[in-house]
Amino acid sequence: MKILELARDVLKISRKTSLDEFVEKVRLIVEEVKKRGDSALIEFTEKFDGVKLKELEVRDEEIDRAYELVEDDLIDSIELAKENIEKFHSITAPQELFIDFDWAVLGKKYLPIESAGVYVPGGRASYPSTALMACVPAKIAGVDRVVVCTPPARDGSVNPLTLVACDIAGVDEMFKVGGAQAIAALAYGTETIKPVLKIVGPGNVYVTAAKILVSKDVAIDMPAGPSEILIIADSSADPKFIALDCLAQLEHDPMAVAVVLSTSRKLIDEVVTEVKKYGEPDNLYLAEVSSIEEAMEISNSFAPEHLEMVFEGAEEAISLVKNAGSVFIGELSGVAFGDYISGTNHILPTAGYAKMLSGLSVETFMKSITFQQINERGVSMLGEKAVKIAKAEGLEFHAKSIEERIRAIKGR
Amino acid sequence: MKILELARDVLKISRKTSLDEFVEKVRLIVEEVKKRGDSALIEFTEKFDGVKLKELEVRDEEIDRAYELVEDDLIDSIELAKENIEKFHSITAPQELFIDFDWAVLGKKYLPIESAGVYVPGGRASYPSTALMACVPAKIAGVDRVVVCTPPARDGSVNPLTLVACDIAGVDEMFKVGGAQAIAALAYGTETIKPVLKIVGPGNVYVTAAKILVSKDVAIDMPAGPSEILIIADSSADPKFIALDCLAQLEHDPMAVAVVLSTSRKLIDEVVTEVKKYGEPDNLYLAEVSSIEEAMEISNSFAPEHLEMVFEGAEEAISLVKNAGSVFIGELSGVAFGDYISGTNHILPTAGYAKMLSGLSVETFMKSITFQQINERGVSMLGEKAVKIAKAEGLEFHAKSIEERIRAIKGR
Repeated sequence: MKILELARDVLKISRKTSLDEFVEKVRLIVEEVKKRGDSALIEFTEKFDGVKLKELEVRDEEIDRAYELVEDDLIDSIELAKENIEKFHSITAPQELFIDFDWAVLGKKYLPIESAGVYVPGGRASYPSTALMACVPAKIAGVDRVVVCTPPARDGSVNPLTLVACDIAGVDEMFKVGGAQAIAALAYGTETIKPVLKIVGPGNVYVTAAKILVSKDVAIDMPAGPSEILIIADSSADPKFIALDCLAQLEHDPMAVAVVLSTSRKLIDEVVTEVKKYGEPDNLYLAEVSSIEEAMEISNSFAPEHLEMVFEGAEEAISLVKNAGSVFIGELSGVAFGDYISGTNHILPTAGYAKMLSGLSVETFMKSITFQQINERGVSMLGEKAVKIAKAEGLEFHAKSIEERIRAIKGR
Repeated sequence: MKILELARDVLKISRKTSLDEFVEKVRLIVEEVKKRGDSALIEFTEKFDGVKLKELEVRDEEIDRAYELVEDDLIDSIELAKENIEKFHSITAPQELFIDFDWAVLGKKYLPIESAGVYVPGGRASYPSTALMACVPAKIAGVDRVVVCTPPARDGSVNPLTLVACDIAGVDEMFKVGGAQAIAALAYGTETIKPVLKIVGPGNVYVTAAKILVSKDVAIDMPAGPSEILIIADSSADPKFIALDCLAQLEHDPMAVAVVLSTSRKLIDEVVTEVKKYGEPDNLYLAEVSSIEEAMEISNSFAPEHLEMVFEGAEEAISLVKNAGSVFIGELSGVAFGDYISGTNHILPTAGYAKMLSGLSVETFMKSITFQQINERGVSMLGEKAVKIAKAEGLEFHAKSIEERIRAIKGR
């Protein structure tokens, strides 16, 4: 925990791990899986997860059994979360559009990527919420094959809640494989795991490094780093909520970062007092700012994964947000709501990538295609000018392909 | 030119160049630019472009002069192209959406990436159309700094038409730098060229390799490969148009590929006859198919950059398109219209990447941010269920941050 003298010093907080070293480390794993398929997967799983698997795929019986192991209340919670994710993601899904111009019909359609791999972290902890966040949008997009890979526990099982979440999300295939070997399998395929066209989902540095390594051959979502929150608050904010939201962010990962910028020194002190009830976290930074505008400016440079705006006039200040992954407005909007249940996605750009990348959404699993049907009017209105440019670029057949069409319609 | 016995053999055409070797070759260039900035740029430009530049930036006088050098008709053509690109791209730009749910307001906004670098190929040839295709959407998105890099000619000049196109597109900064060194400068910055957040635009293998190399630090659009067309035609199609559209595609690059699939053997023979008037291109493949459906299926597996559908019922067959960069319907819709003037984009995924990537668009220069404002009803409706999931994931502070909010609203 550190109170910064100069608020802009939050921009000096180191957040980006160099992955170069890890890319080299996982290269061999990826090559082996590419070469030897399932048998490499089984070896690496024994080495890294401590279990020698007979089968890589999760069987239907395991899913049935998982439903028995998870209490009903929790299944209900997962179902409600799924429902809300579905609502928000469906409404904000991209829409096709065909426009009748004078000279042509031009259109743009969004179509699903036919197969997608989702990495769900696992092992000791379980992340059913991440399974929902990645798989529900994929299914809304219309992806045919949604394939989940998640590392098994030492007894060869997968956390039953993760299995239930995947099943509720409509996942098509699930495999007990984690780490870089899972990414390699999804990218290049093995006897058991057919390759996919795009790989998404957060993982540790090895998973992220492997995603970067295979990204020349398949699409990936984004490099995932440690989680972050930046909270902008004035004296009206409740220090207890702020303290807990910081602690919630920090419990994800020892590398996670929490920042509080406040126009009120008193609030900062109160947040510190609240936090101290639970300990002295390393990566919590607090600073006083002279105005909300200053705080917004610093936040835009920081480009936090999560931004909380807890001050009077926060709603109107939305227009000041330039860079952030997901934004939470007002004291009731704790990040944890977005993490689990409100319907927005929690797979978000970290480490400043929110400046140029988006959180996961239905678009993540679609590509757009443009269409055009030029009519005679189009040929005569646009033809000559296109020929001009084609000739200037020295592309004679481009010019000729249009000239012939101009000639053809003149004859009609 | 080859007539294939088996139409599905078009899927065996090799289209993907391995970039690994080139990535290694450009690594040194990128490192040098990172280390030595402008002086490295000047050295590499002397080495690769054969000109020792005194200044890297294009001066206003050069742009003024360019307008004098280009004939008015051509300037008009560029302006019309810009206007149509602007129309189509504005209408299909992503829209923000805020939804009032019972329990919260949830929203999604699209905001511009603050700076973007555009690589415009140059040297011997000039590509004003590519400058428009990349820069106009960037400006519609609202990118503050649109920075163009393009290689100079041996006399240190940049093609005047490219300068005019950049100026008409509203480009903010232009530099005479090409190749991997341009990508390095855009990614990491030098004394003269400030770094950008995203780099787009097609280039040769060195440019593409450099983009892949820097993609761990900045966003890039997609790996660009040689151009491709796949034409599906029945006996109603005009063989002359088909022949010319193939030849147009092939004149881009010795590695470009053209494929014709037809239900009519007669048409194939006629196309061959037409093509032979101009020569015997290597990479033109023709094959008879038993049905339009078979052709569509092969096309979807091939995922061509450009798809022409020239057969009866083509309009209705749009729904059969699963993978393609841009689609042209009917005999008048030559690809060259989309290349230059109709308004759709010509920077498109090649080598099968249309299965998972989109052509360049306004979205290319934006990122989305989600917003939420949870209300009291939301806290009471969703709170307990979110707490359940948080606890199941072992994230105690996540649970507590919600529990405290439930407690707070109960007290109201």
